[in-house]
Amino acid sequence: MPVDANASIEVTTLSWVPEPAKGLVKDLRVRWALEEAGLGYRVRQVGADRPGYSNDQPFNQVPCFTDGKVQIFESGAIVQYIGEQSEALLPRDPQRRMRAIQWTYAALSSVEPSVQHRVLLERVWAEHEWAQQSKPMMDQMAKMRLQQVSDRLGDNEWLDGEGFTIGDLMMITVLRIGDRAKLLDQTPNLVAYMERGQSRPAFRQALADHFQAFEPKGEAA
Amino acid sequence: MPVDANASIEVTTLSWVPEPAKGLVKDLRVRWALEEAGLGYRVRQVGADRPGYSNDQPFNQVPCFTDGKVQIFESGAIVQYIGEQSEALLPRDPQRRMRAIQWTYAALSSVEPSVQHRVLLERVWAEHEWAQQSKPMMDQMAKMRLQQVSDRLGDNEWLDGEGFTIGDLMMITVLRIGDRAKLLDQTPNLVAYMERGQSRPAFRQALADHFQAFEPKGEAA
Repeated sequence: MPVDANASIEVTTLSWVPEPAKGLVKDLRVRWALEEAGLGYRVRQVGADRPGYSNDQPFNQVPCFTDGKVQIFESGAIVQYIGEQSEALLPRDPQRRMRAIQWTYAALSSVEPSVQHRVLLERVWAEHEWAQQSKPMMDQMAKMRLQQVSDRLGDNEWLDGEGFTIGDLMMITVLRIGDRAKLLDQTPNLVAYMERGQSRPAFRQALADHFQAFEPKGEAA
Repeated sequence: MPVDANASIEVTTLSWVPEPAKGLVKDLRVRWALEEAGLGYRVRQVGADRPGYSNDQPFNQVPCFTDGKVQIFESGAIVQYIGEQSEALLPRDPQRRMRAIQWTYAALSSVEPSVQHRVLLERVWAEHEWAQQSKPMMDQMAKMRLQQVSDRLGDNEWLDGEGFTIGDLMMITVLRIGDRAKLLDQTPNLVAYMERGQSRPAFRQALADHFQAFEPKGEAA
């Protein structure tokens, strides 16, 4: 599903990010969900200086989302909303539906914080002495969480035994952050799981469009 | 709505936590939502040593939830599920519904991580030199997020102009964590907002039952 300037769905992305952030900015999650759901969308790019944007997004981040009916931010909420329009992403059965939503929250609330902190120690705060000193403990915290996900996943293809859901989509985007800091070395099943996600055609299209948007002749106006 | 040993809803809590954690353990969120929704529940307490529990909860944490139809963990997912049974907590109008869910994710994903990290620096890692050294920057990160929530809330009673939702419930439990580390000093409107939440009868009942469960003759079997 190509990006479509006439689509009613609009996703807000950044016009520029530092090189290491490419592939990790959270519009990727929304692009991926839209591709899985087969929904076209247009892109609104915002720059480093974005006056007034905090009216749309109080944390001054991307993505924002609108489809003309609902306007929201927070990648978790947006992906869930898209899932509600696509049984392929969010099953209708109450137990399976809530299990997918549970994993979406788990990715964002129980796994991402320690992984993200660990990556910031290496990428943003590296020149501080405390960053080096705290790294072993933060490593341990992030790896404990990843090990717990690894233990639960086991040899399964996806977190829910019955198929890919928004919970996998979100968890895999969190694992991609951890992978940048080499946090997955002890959990090869998570590497394989991440790669299964990344080999989905919807992911590949979303990632290509995500990168394309940072090119000088990108899709933005 | 008293805790009821015969209720079909079961919430898993801890039988013991260190004194400073009382009032912050995340079963409180679920108890509060159930009180707001007028749903009775029974409590299953698990101890410090909980063999086999990771089958129910891969991160070895509380709360878990079941109502005989759906079994899930993650406080965000549980509170949302309870909200879906109570229009008082989660409006049915699509925009208002998604806005409430957006704030639930925002509380857990955009605000709690920096606040929680800052509290751990003070409470758990205080003896490490790096904890003291990193505190100013972590203070700044947590306070930036809190200021952004403060700016958005302004003089409104609740985050959604039209009434209390699960988004407020979740945000207020996150503010309670920040308040323990005196992170709310510069945002008096967040203090007032937190206190508005805490003065709700449902919150007071939930908090009382949360504390009661840690008493020697608590409600557990």
